[in-house]
Amino acid sequence: MQPEALSALIAEFRKLPAVGLKTATRYAYALIDMSEAEASEFADAIMRAKAEIHFCSECGNYTDREVCERCLTADKRVICVVAEPRDVTAFEKLGTYDGLYHVLHGTLDFQKGIGAEQIRIKELLTRLDGVEEVIVATNPDVSGEMTAAYIARLIKPLGIKVTRLAHGIPVGSEIEYTDEMTLGKALSDRKEI
Amino acid sequence: MQPEALSALIAEFRKLPAVGLKTATRYAYALIDMSEAEASEFADAIMRAKAEIHFCSECGNYTDREVCERCLTADKRVICVVAEPRDVTAFEKLGTYDGLYHVLHGTLDFQKGIGAEQIRIKELLTRLDGVEEVIVATNPDVSGEMTAAYIARLIKPLGIKVTRLAHGIPVGSEIEYTDEMTLGKALSDRKEI
Repeated sequence: MQPEALSALIAEFRKLPAVGLKTATRYAYALIDMSEAEASEFADAIMRAKAEIHFCSECGNYTDREVCERCLTADKRVICVVAEPRDVTAFEKLGTYDGLYHVLHGTLDFQKGIGAEQIRIKELLTRLDGVEEVIVATNPDVSGEMTAAYIARLIKPLGIKVTRLAHGIPVGSEIEYTDEMTLGKALSDRKEI
Repeated sequence: MQPEALSALIAEFRKLPAVGLKTATRYAYALIDMSEAEASEFADAIMRAKAEIHFCSECGNYTDREVCERCLTADKRVICVVAEPRDVTAFEKLGTYDGLYHVLHGTLDFQKGIGAEQIRIKELLTRLDGVEEVIVATNPDVSGEMTAAYIARLIKPLGIKVTRLAHGIPVGSEIEYTDEMTLGKALSDRKEI
């Protein structure tokens, strides 16, 4: 008996991560309860984000420019290598790191068939001119550690220091969810691989 | 450093119920990771739901017609009175009730200044022709009980049976979240007020 347009909207909300039927239904009701203007603002924000945001051609983070502001203004002697854009957000909140970022868009996982070709390792190698330190800030799980070791093996022979975040991040948890205190400590205590 | 279109999209997602900054950010990333086609489907679903869905002029539930299908096809001897459209959804899932619904869009709450004029009680009174029973299925909290008592006082003098869902719904919880077994029992054990 549910109007088709309502079912369709609920189906769309269910495509978001970890959203089940009940949550999607609540969201859909909330949206229908909004004013006409608010609802079109919502739809416009979706279309605008999709149209304007893409990956920075240098670091691979989200940006609305060709090269993101960070890549233009950062201290270019240090690169912090992360798996996903959301990990950059976690570091940005710290406010204490002013070097470059490099987003791999994944980590090595041979079981899933993700090798060095599938993530942005080649692009990292083209960015090492003038770089003194590469901080590999992948998650402390099997795939993240393997990626860090792989990158260290490629880059250390070039005479560049390769570091890893200090233990301080609880093993098994994710960078994205680490509180700022812990992440700050992990950054300052980073150690050479 | 976050692109403005990304911040704007996150701000929109935060308008949804119980969505904080982290959840909104995850949703925004998920949306940007969708294909162009998927993202416009999402935006279209919002605009379409907003354009097509409104309240049924009879029962007050969401519909894409002037009068909803339920109001046209139901057993018109029974009306189930609920506070919100989402409560109708809970009964619909049972699949055992085939009478009319009436959505009040709120319950009496004098502290918040919500009196009988602010909810759809007047509209309920115009629908009682041929009705033999009014089931008042408001939540078992102070506001819901007060609304049920108020409706009973208006309608019982007309010789119409007024019932309330049986205790079976845990006190303090909400109809929307009641499992189907419990809600089914509460419906079959309903008792006259």
